[in-house]
Amino acid sequence: MDRNELINLIYSKRSFLCIGLDSDLTKIPPHLLEYDDPVFGFNKAIIDATHDLAIAYKPNFAFYESSGVRGWNSLVRTIQYINQTLPGKVFSIADAKRGDIGNTSQQYARAMFDPGSSGMDFDAVTVAPYMGEDSVKPFLSYPGKWIIVLALTSNKGAADFQFFGDHDRRLFEQVLHKSVEWGSAENMMYVVGATQAEMLADIRKIVPDHFLLMPGVGAQGGSLQDVAKYGLTKECGLIVNSSRNIIYASNGADFAEKAREEAMKIQQEMEEILS
Amino acid sequence: MDRNELINLIYSKRSFLCIGLDSDLTKIPPHLLEYDDPVFGFNKAIIDATHDLAIAYKPNFAFYESSGVRGWNSLVRTIQYINQTLPGKVFSIADAKRGDIGNTSQQYARAMFDPGSSGMDFDAVTVAPYMGEDSVKPFLSYPGKWIIVLALTSNKGAADFQFFGDHDRRLFEQVLHKSVEWGSAENMMYVVGATQAEMLADIRKIVPDHFLLMPGVGAQGGSLQDVAKYGLTKECGLIVNSSRNIIYASNGADFAEKAREEAMKIQQEMEEILS
Repeated sequence: MDRNELINLIYSKRSFLCIGLDSDLTKIPPHLLEYDDPVFGFNKAIIDATHDLAIAYKPNFAFYESSGVRGWNSLVRTIQYINQTLPGKVFSIADAKRGDIGNTSQQYARAMFDPGSSGMDFDAVTVAPYMGEDSVKPFLSYPGKWIIVLALTSNKGAADFQFFGDHDRRLFEQVLHKSVEWGSAENMMYVVGATQAEMLADIRKIVPDHFLLMPGVGAQGGSLQDVAKYGLTKECGLIVNSSRNIIYASNGADFAEKAREEAMKIQQEMEEILS
Repeated sequence: MDRNELINLIYSKRSFLCIGLDSDLTKIPPHLLEYDDPVFGFNKAIIDATHDLAIAYKPNFAFYESSGVRGWNSLVRTIQYINQTLPGKVFSIADAKRGDIGNTSQQYARAMFDPGSSGMDFDAVTVAPYMGEDSVKPFLSYPGKWIIVLALTSNKGAADFQFFGDHDRRLFEQVLHKSVEWGSAENMMYVVGATQAEMLADIRKIVPDHFLLMPGVGAQGGSLQDVAKYGLTKECGLIVNSSRNIIYASNGADFAEKAREEAMKIQQEMEEILS
């Protein structure tokens, strides 16, 4: 999906909501455990109930890998379901935070973007910047695909290294300055935690046009209004993720319906912000 | 495996060699492609032929994920084979370079260390430090398990951010200084590229006792002698990885035999260094 298609999606759905599919076997409604593939069943129901309200889905790989082969199978089925039933209608993000030497990142890129090899065909992948340019570039060799580089994350530990440096330039700013040269606003985004809204003005000075993927609204305490105030651009420029608040809104038979209600609350707030 | 057991392994095998199982379907000997699970067949043959010479095996997850569910299955079978046939005889490293917010890193830790959940039970996992303490700590909650934190990597891109800072303290030194407090030399190691041997004196000032996992000998150009000169401690303190040089020593029916020959060359050099 290219940038124009993404922007069209945002304005047609009047939403910049991404739903994080952090689908945990120990947290999904117990009645689903009777299914052959409970996690896929859960994801399918959430997607079916919310795809007119959300512009993106973001499975976090950790929640699938923790169940080994079975989990990986649920992950592959989920992205295949999205691609088969909603082609061009949602943006899909492999939240994998990968990064390794070039030779190895090439293999991770095949995992995310080469369905003939891995069965998976995401639109975007989150990448960790620590190992530098050659660890990130292989992901950019797939036309039409995106990388989303960790810049300033939503968690407490973000302070340990991301603010390292001096007031002139901190590590997260160095990451932005260096990495903007590796691609463009047509194939790169950045992860900025919604809990870091006060830093958005500084970030927008370096990347005025890039889309920002913002996790941390909801369970982690970030505010949508703050994020929009400092991060919104004239083409929106934001994808705001919510995971647990939406997908675990209910633990009963009504889980998909309740997830839709939560997603709609956020979508309506977003519609106001966009207009 | 605890630190004493690891040290005993090193001195009894007179080796600190780790073999990287970067097993790529397009590079393994073609006759294996007839197998049901060629990558597992390849790994098994390499392990069978080298386990008296190597103290550790390190599958890099990228090479498995690139084949999707099938690859993940080969990975699980490989670690299960190691644990079943060589209990206590080799150290196993999940080279996954993971790291995410605490809630998510917990799931990655289950993937690596909880066989009841994922089918996998590695001794150690490589972790990326960018997201800080809470992204790393969940991996340390498993007794007897190790984390191996990326400090200074072997690739060209290492220079992009790992040297960020000033001469007093660069990012990789900040990572060492901060993270040594999260665990101990009994459950933490660091990745330092063998191509960075000249930095080892500086690194040993901060972490004199920690084991260092050093990739980059062989295909990437690092020298075993240089690494030993600056990095060796009185308890060895080094695990040196070689991947492609060993596992792809031959593309024919003799691949395991040739891998053994390459591993033995390195082991003999290590035996001299240790004595």
